[in-house]
Amino acid sequence: MSSNLNTKIDLRIDTKLVEKILTGFITDCFEKTGLEKAVIGLSGGLDSSVTAALTVKALGCERIAGIVLPYKTSAQSSRKDAEFMASHFGIKAELIDITPMTDEYFKTDNSADENRRGNMMARQRMAVLYDISARENGLVIGTSNKSELLLGYGTIFGDLACAINPVGDLYKTQLRQLANDIDIPKRILKKKPTADLVIGQTDEDDLGFTYDEIDPLLFLMVDEQFSFDELIEKGYDADFVRDIEKRIRMNHYKRIPPLIAKVSKRTIGHEFRYPWDWSAV
Amino acid sequence: MSSNLNTKIDLRIDTKLVEKILTGFITDCFEKTGLEKAVIGLSGGLDSSVTAALTVKALGCERIAGIVLPYKTSAQSSRKDAEFMASHFGIKAELIDITPMTDEYFKTDNSADENRRGNMMARQRMAVLYDISARENGLVIGTSNKSELLLGYGTIFGDLACAINPVGDLYKTQLRQLANDIDIPKRILKKKPTADLVIGQTDEDDLGFTYDEIDPLLFLMVDEQFSFDELIEKGYDADFVRDIEKRIRMNHYKRIPPLIAKVSKRTIGHEFRYPWDWSAV
Repeated sequence: MSSNLNTKIDLRIDTKLVEKILTGFITDCFEKTGLEKAVIGLSGGLDSSVTAALTVKALGCERIAGIVLPYKTSAQSSRKDAEFMASHFGIKAELIDITPMTDEYFKTDNSADENRRGNMMARQRMAVLYDISARENGLVIGTSNKSELLLGYGTIFGDLACAINPVGDLYKTQLRQLANDIDIPKRILKKKPTADLVIGQTDEDDLGFTYDEIDPLLFLMVDEQFSFDELIEKGYDADFVRDIEKRIRMNHYKRIPPLIAKVSKRTIGHEFRYPWDWSAV
Repeated sequence: MSSNLNTKIDLRIDTKLVEKILTGFITDCFEKTGLEKAVIGLSGGLDSSVTAALTVKALGCERIAGIVLPYKTSAQSSRKDAEFMASHFGIKAELIDITPMTDEYFKTDNSADENRRGNMMARQRMAVLYDISARENGLVIGTSNKSELLLGYGTIFGDLACAINPVGDLYKTQLRQLANDIDIPKRILKKKPTADLVIGQTDEDDLGFTYDEIDPLLFLMVDEQFSFDELIEKGYDADFVRDIEKRIRMNHYKRIPPLIAKVSKRTIGHEFRYPWDWSAV
């Protein structure tokens, strides 16, 4: 492991192979569940566009419900990009404005900051996508990438909520590589990542670093299991490594089911978690 | 295991011990996270009342935000019971009507059935509780019991969503035993369990069996890992056992995090799940 120190980290993926694995994953999930439609929230950004493209390849465009979910502060360009993407892939897009639902709640409390408002919007979007999945006999497809999931850059029970996530094991920079090879239009490829919850916000400003900077470090920490000392040897700043470590740890709750207090010998989420944990299946 | 066949199943718990474990669990979660308030949705039913009572014992009544979240079709009596419970335990209760948020959405689609409407309400309640937890620097406390969690009788990313759940390892009948010993008022103890999403609905009518009937079977299946043949020997009806098995299996997705397609050697939810899965922590 340490033989690679002080060399460039290689996050290149075999995009053809990854595409094959991910479309197979989607096909398999729909075959096993017997469900009809894939329900995808289209933001006009890269992650949901790649997810939609993979789902079209797996199921065909008729089986996708693309849902565009703007709030009143969302950029007009995001909505246009989302609709452009949908028509590019032959997906029927449905527009549902989450402003009335969200604003009805904040009428009772107008002291809420941008963070609370953003999380509420993300949860309203989830609630709408799940309702549509019930209407359409469908599955909600998640679009969070591995960088976001590790950094906790997302809303628990909001955009992080889904039935299946085809892109959650790809770092953002790897998702860009895949996007380059699967016919994602240039105007989507070139956009800066944004949650589009606050006007003018970009993810990389929010986070304080770029995905090009963070992805190699996340890869060394998580995939290669480098120790702190090995990361320092590699040339990383000690405080930066500590900050990222803390961030991954503090956000771990977003990646696991709710914690249940254990009082029996077989507790949900502890011993009772996999089908094979239960002999009667 | 089979030596007990054809005897009565004993689900009695040591309520004093269980109370001690559960209040310790709550105290511990708050000490570790450093958060201030416990945010609990109070329905006026037994599960949320017991959860609130345990949390009062663990943290004191000042550290609890009891939130009453009626929809226009919720029974007036539920709201009164919730407020009665709050005052009984000295908890400050806040009332937030979820009708406007919910109805704004269904304006765009009035074909939605009761099931879709009920799930939307459960998700609106979750969104409000999480917003309040952000406002109060708090943790959302879950109230789903083990019977509900196994049967999937709850809304994913709705009432099943929480940070911690003190009662999730107690079958409903065990929760009743605990309630009898921790000063829950008689009028709450005697109520029939209801999700209160549809007028007049009771959980046991919905499910098609009582908790007294189902809990021993769930216990034998899950906790004691009886095989199908052992359950039949025990006197259970084969079709009933198959139905319950299927129900537990079909609802398993509600008890685990979203499924991520695996393309790397360490994938979130597969190899990367526990703190010790990651050497740099």
